[in-house]
Amino acid sequence: MELEGAVELQQAVRFALFHTLQAGARAEGRAIPAKGLTGPGYDGHTFWDTETFVLRPLTYTAPRAAGDALRWRHATLDLARERAKVLGLDGAAFSWRTIGGQETSGYWPAGTAAFHVNAGIADAVVRYRFASGDDAFEHDAAVELLVETARLWLSSGHHDSHGRFRIDGVTGPDEYSAIADNNVYTNLMAQKNLLAAADAAERYPDRAWGLGAGPEEVAAWRDAARTMLVPHDGTLGVHPQAEGFTQHAVWDFAHTSPERYPLMLHFPYFDLYRKQVVKQADLVLALYLRGEAFSLEEKARDFEYYEALTVRDSSLSAFVQAVVAAEVGHLELAYDYFGEAAMLDLDDIYHNTRDGIHLASLAGAWIAAVAGFGGMRDYGGSLSFAPRLPRRLSRLAFCLLFRGRRIRVEVDHRQARYALLRGDPLEVAHHGGAVALAADEPVTRPIPPAPPRRAPNQPPGRAPLRHRHSSSGTGESSKEDRS
Amino acid sequence: MELEGAVELQQAVRFALFHTLQAGARAEGRAIPAKGLTGPGYDGHTFWDTETFVLRPLTYTAPRAAGDALRWRHATLDLARERAKVLGLDGAAFSWRTIGGQETSGYWPAGTAAFHVNAGIADAVVRYRFASGDDAFEHDAAVELLVETARLWLSSGHHDSHGRFRIDGVTGPDEYSAIADNNVYTNLMAQKNLLAAADAAERYPDRAWGLGAGPEEVAAWRDAARTMLVPHDGTLGVHPQAEGFTQHAVWDFAHTSPERYPLMLHFPYFDLYRKQVVKQADLVLALYLRGEAFSLEEKARDFEYYEALTVRDSSLSAFVQAVVAAEVGHLELAYDYFGEAAMLDLDDIYHNTRDGIHLASLAGAWIAAVAGFGGMRDYGGSLSFAPRLPRRLSRLAFCLLFRGRRIRVEVDHRQARYALLRGDPLEVAHHGGAVALAADEPVTRPIPPAPPRRAPNQPPGRAPLRHRHSSSGTGESSKEDRS
Repeated sequence: MELEGAVELQQAVRFALFHTLQAGARAEGRAIPAKGLTGPGYDGHTFWDTETFVLRPLTYTAPRAAGDALRWRHATLDLARERAKVLGLDGAAFSWRTIGGQETSGYWPAGTAAFHVNAGIADAVVRYRFASGDDAFEHDAAVELLVETARLWLSSGHHDSHGRFRIDGVTGPDEYSAIADNNVYTNLMAQKNLLAAADAAERYPDRAWGLGAGPEEVAAWRDAARTMLVPHDGTLGVHPQAEGFTQHAVWDFAHTSPERYPLMLHFPYFDLYRKQVVKQADLVLALYLRGEAFSLEEKARDFEYYEALTVRDSSLSAFVQAVVAAEVGHLELAYDYFGEAAMLDLDDIYHNTRDGIHLASLAGAWIAAVAGFGGMRDYGGSLSFAPRLPRRLSRLAFCLLFRGRRIRVEVDHRQARYALLRGDPLEVAHHGGAVALAADEPVTRPIPPAPPRRAPNQPPGRAPLRHRHSSSGTGESSKEDRS
Repeated sequence: MELEGAVELQQAVRFALFHTLQAGARAEGRAIPAKGLTGPGYDGHTFWDTETFVLRPLTYTAPRAAGDALRWRHATLDLARERAKVLGLDGAAFSWRTIGGQETSGYWPAGTAAFHVNAGIADAVVRYRFASGDDAFEHDAAVELLVETARLWLSSGHHDSHGRFRIDGVTGPDEYSAIADNNVYTNLMAQKNLLAAADAAERYPDRAWGLGAGPEEVAAWRDAARTMLVPHDGTLGVHPQAEGFTQHAVWDFAHTSPERYPLMLHFPYFDLYRKQVVKQADLVLALYLRGEAFSLEEKARDFEYYEALTVRDSSLSAFVQAVVAAEVGHLELAYDYFGEAAMLDLDDIYHNTRDGIHLASLAGAWIAAVAGFGGMRDYGGSLSFAPRLPRRLSRLAFCLLFRGRRIRVEVDHRQARYALLRGDPLEVAHHGGAVALAADEPVTRPIPPAPPRRAPNQPPGRAPLRHRHSSSGTGESSKEDRS
């Protein structure tokens, strides 16, 4: 990946990709821990963020490593089946935190109840299958992973009297909420999981048959997906993180002094759980991972609403906020979040890098650049781009591996250039328009201007750390400055 | 208390009152533990049910003991203030479980978050003040207790965009739910607490002034009480135990075999919390303690709905169900619940009486008789009765102490007789009609027939234990039989 205009961030992205590849490519059939092998933090455990974040760059740059990691999860399937049984559910309940496959989170409302890990695994499986074309993996592991996670969702939800499929009493990604009904991220990711399982079962009827998944069960998955409840607050015109969330009191940010962050070290969870305060992207993560389920204007409104509530007491947030900020048009804000994610360990921003690097945030630096400024999405298995650079970057270039192809994307402020360096012709999208790629025939497309938007507010003192070395050298502050 | 037609239950009620008086009258300035001093169960701890249940018979039979118990709570006020501060709340947060005043519950969603204990204390304070006329207590302790608990509620709730006062993220009495929004019992009890504090502050402006409670604060309490949110499910025509409760999946009672009760020993709380299954009266407790907030038909519908969900894996339920069953007209069912509560320890129904008696359930035997078959209520500080006997009881008589008076109530199937044995004249109510009582001038009133109702269903196998010794001697089963 090449970044022009930000020498330090160029180095940081290389540092990030080095660690991501080192931890991923040499996991050798074991879990990829949250710290890789760089330190004792989290005692070597792996969490939900491996599949949701770390496997994303690996899938498109070192697909074999992504496949290995998913095969490791597949190897823990019997333990996950046992866990589901203990919880009174069908299918498999993969661990939110683990080393060898057993759930090791000590406090179930924040661990076990975060069932979204299962949809994150399913999503990574689908992504890897599309990007790698690894048919052996699909036949041997993917169908089974998708079927068993779909079963979990079907048994963990139910239809209400209006026919809507509800998933109650679970915990979403945000660790300042727990055991809520109809977490939007969870429900939308479960929806995708259910549909992916139905598709896989129909593609591999022999495997589905062997797993006991007949047409009735597949129809039930499709029905649950079709009727999945996605709560919306009509008064505020935004999506609540979970049902009722936007009715809760807003955290008293004005009277929370800087030294009381991170909040979980200074306030009881009783207080955090019941109020509108967000540790890490949750609804905003849904805007990215299930972006096709929202209009651009919905994303802009939701993003602005959650910006004002998100304190980023977690390293799993800045790069997600960067991606959605870039998409809705807050490019300078996206750049600041990108910088924070990329520099997290090099600048020891959290004062705990001695315990090991923050692998998901390092993978997140790639995500912020590729999905943020490159606007790369892979909904439905096709590649689309909507690149736009912040003023402080003059050029971004990156390569992706996709089904044996090698694609290079190069972006400046005026245009994007798509080149197929290797492999068969392919159609991708640029800002919604089709782009046919063939080897040695690079295509150039102009960058449409970003929609003008008022800069959103963060809670006082919780704006992203402004990256110190501006590329422009003018010292000029962006028009999106937050006071 | 005299019961005719049920020799065993007559003995059981005496046993119950003996233990209630022994534990209460000789607490001598300490907490009244859940087991009294009869065994090692709960390691000597006292819980919220002391004020909510045990002080009820004590207030009307041994008021000095009730006053002592409330003075003990008052003595822990500084600890409760500290606890509130730790939790980021104003006023006082009394312990849900304690020995010396410090909160000792180990799992906050089931302990600390059960803030209703504060309203239970306030309710007991109001009751004791009305029943005893103990002015010294009111001046020295009651005003402070009411003011500090009202402050807790005001700071734990907030107004939503429709102006409704919400109390989010708390736990009601039912231990198969936790951290829910707008628990009806909690909100209604908080409402009463807020109004009682406002009244007390206006009666004792000097005390209120000394506590810093001026007119603005009192006005805020009245406003919160007036706008208190009480959720209602318009589709089902019942009150949800907490917001969203009636949308949750109903527990699969049909496939829960008898040996898997009590559920908390065989299913994870993850599963219990997210479904419609009730361990102990919660909404039904609100129907009793805040009965003036519901119409009789609402009570009948709500009672029937929750009967089908309540498994009674707690000794804090049968006598409450007896009271509301009797009020809405299910007299034979009420008798069975009464019998279960009264015989709990004598028959060792829970197989753990070796750990000590279940004091609240023993107090509950008195409650089931007096508030259930006697229909005694004390809303607003005036005594009312609505007596009706089940067929298996031919006579019920009990005495109450009330502001220096001694009142005797005697009920058979045809009529009720009210006698003022000692003290100044008093007006009470009989089935809604005024009854003027003066010494040596007993008044007799006929018993109106109970409204005909279809017997409600309990979860399979969870009907009350039918009391074995029927008074009628005919062996005839009631028309309310549950198959």
